[in-house]
Amino acid sequence: MRRALELAGAEVGSTGSNPAVGCVLLDAEGTTVATGVHRGPGTPHAEVDALRRARGRHRGTTAVVTLEPCDHQGRTGPCSKALIEAGVRRVLYAVADPNRVAAGGARRLADAGVEVVGGVLGAEAEAVLEMWLTAVRAGRPFVTWKFAATLDGRSAAADGSARWISSAESRADAHELRARHDAVLVGSGTWRSDDPRLDLRHGVVGHPPLRIALDARGELPPDSRLLDGAAPTLVVTDPATGTAAHGESESESNDNSGINTSTSRGANSGPDVLRLKTDARGHFPPLDLLAALDGRGVRSVLVEGGPALAASFVRAGLVDRVVAYVAPLLLGSEGVSATGPLGIGSIREAHRFRITSVDRIGPDLRIELRPPARTGGTQ
Amino acid sequence: MRRALELAGAEVGSTGSNPAVGCVLLDAEGTTVATGVHRGPGTPHAEVDALRRARGRHRGTTAVVTLEPCDHQGRTGPCSKALIEAGVRRVLYAVADPNRVAAGGARRLADAGVEVVGGVLGAEAEAVLEMWLTAVRAGRPFVTWKFAATLDGRSAAADGSARWISSAESRADAHELRARHDAVLVGSGTWRSDDPRLDLRHGVVGHPPLRIALDARGELPPDSRLLDGAAPTLVVTDPATGTAAHGESESESNDNSGINTSTSRGANSGPDVLRLKTDARGHFPPLDLLAALDGRGVRSVLVEGGPALAASFVRAGLVDRVVAYVAPLLLGSEGVSATGPLGIGSIREAHRFRITSVDRIGPDLRIELRPPARTGGTQ
Repeated sequence: MRRALELAGAEVGSTGSNPAVGCVLLDAEGTTVATGVHRGPGTPHAEVDALRRARGRHRGTTAVVTLEPCDHQGRTGPCSKALIEAGVRRVLYAVADPNRVAAGGARRLADAGVEVVGGVLGAEAEAVLEMWLTAVRAGRPFVTWKFAATLDGRSAAADGSARWISSAESRADAHELRARHDAVLVGSGTWRSDDPRLDLRHGVVGHPPLRIALDARGELPPDSRLLDGAAPTLVVTDPATGTAAHGESESESNDNSGINTSTSRGANSGPDVLRLKTDARGHFPPLDLLAALDGRGVRSVLVEGGPALAASFVRAGLVDRVVAYVAPLLLGSEGVSATGPLGIGSIREAHRFRITSVDRIGPDLRIELRPPARTGGTQ
Repeated sequence: MRRALELAGAEVGSTGSNPAVGCVLLDAEGTTVATGVHRGPGTPHAEVDALRRARGRHRGTTAVVTLEPCDHQGRTGPCSKALIEAGVRRVLYAVADPNRVAAGGARRLADAGVEVVGGVLGAEAEAVLEMWLTAVRAGRPFVTWKFAATLDGRSAAADGSARWISSAESRADAHELRARHDAVLVGSGTWRSDDPRLDLRHGVVGHPPLRIALDARGELPPDSRLLDGAAPTLVVTDPATGTAAHGESESESNDNSGINTSTSRGANSGPDVLRLKTDARGHFPPLDLLAALDGRGVRSVLVEGGPALAASFVRAGLVDRVVAYVAPLLLGSEGVSATGPLGIGSIREAHRFRITSVDRIGPDLRIELRPPARTGGTQ
């Protein structure tokens, strides 16, 4: 199972709306016959990938798979059926499928006389699948808020300068974090001040995440790096804003929620546009935004800034994980606060998290936090 | 030497203006004959303490001592002479005495035919003696700035409430930290808002530190806990402030620096008063304050708050160690900043430290930092 989890872990962030799953086929002596991995929608599931790679030696094997085999006919057939037809003798899986449509594989296998054991290294698999499981269970993408700050909680100096608060080592780690997410989200303050690329650099290879820019008023400059076409970009704007503000192509589709989403990218490689109503203060409600992204198959979002955007997610209780890079610097009270307004008057109202990991990374600290009640996170 | 360092380490914070030193006497077989420790001015030095405890079995022993034996006749005689007269055959020491008055012991011992080896576990001993060595070398007390803050650098909520940002475990650790320092310092904002005791609680035993309250305008209320007589208190006020503001007793002594200090405590157990000129903004210059404390034999000061006081020490480059208790809470930009104004405009001017230790303590993090150039800190 550890090998299967390794295979799955390496694919996190590269499987689109589907979970990263690994599978190992073992013969009666416990020797590996073949391994398989899922690489995203339209590609074979891990079990089928492993059966194909077994080149006929699959009969009587034990399939060790990180997620309960699906029982669903989608673009690929149900894995439960494939395993039964292949003559697999035993199936060990780690986590039950939380997806109602796909669940039921374990039962079908057992009914067919296959020995089935669930929950093998379940906690470890929950950690590998944390983002996808949270997304499926909550019906919205998993949200990581990442920020870099000084020990006194400042993300920039008084003049706005922030290059670099965190070290090169921390920045490289943050690019790894990007590669693990389906999408990266920034607010208008960030693209205004930083003109970020939001791509994968620092030697990080992987699936480039969807770049999402909030732009309620349609003011994203056409020469923004986010519009360079180097990776897919989604611009979120208010329906009241004039269309085609930056050469985007869009095809709207109305649904009952009142959210309009474009569903195709234009031939001119302009950005996709998502039209979403802002609230009375001109901000996009975080849950509405996440619901729209869920509809696009986005299972994980990395909120990269700025302070006001992060604060809106914290206030809404929609942060599933915080990754803080804390640099051993002090900028003082004149510096820019790493968090925006949280509307907190008294200490009793503080937003509480729990620290789930601490690592020294170059001269900095990397601190991961999760909500107190959350289960399934890594300790 | 490790045993000698343990003995010394246990006394840090209890030896007043003198260093914490440990000594172990070993016979020819390496068996411990006696141990000794120094407990502060007027008490025997560690070597003499060990020789006395040897009850006549000191001849021919090896003395293992954490600091170079002194060569100075103070209230107690030179240890170099005592070791020679006791017939000690060999002396191993860790750190050379940085004190000009007391140095020279190693030479006198060698001249008398004693085998002398210095630098044994030197780095470890430097760590144990860090505060005292820094104070003697710099001619001013070692300064630790301790603060508790949220992950976003807030020491209180918007309404000033701060109980409790950090956990009971962190607060107990902070009381241990107090016990390790000669003095604890707070600014007027802190005694105004918190009316702190600044004593040792949470089951911490040790020498209670001198409580120092900055009170430029003589406004410390007579019923303040700092004036409860439970531990010595020093009130620092401006010479322009009317005398006897809170029943203090004082005997002034002018020196050339223009700093007036009282040198005795009154029979009514009122606080000592230190008169020190404030700058144009009404603040005590940190270096002037430290110089006056040095003159009183204070070798280490724990700066406990608030933000403005800490900022004045950071700006002056007078923080030798930062101990930050970081709680997994967010209070947002409305919260009270853990650091006051540092006068920093651009990121290039940020005050830089290096992280020397990180520990999880209860739900919180305890982060120690030191200035980049400093040597002798623990890694």
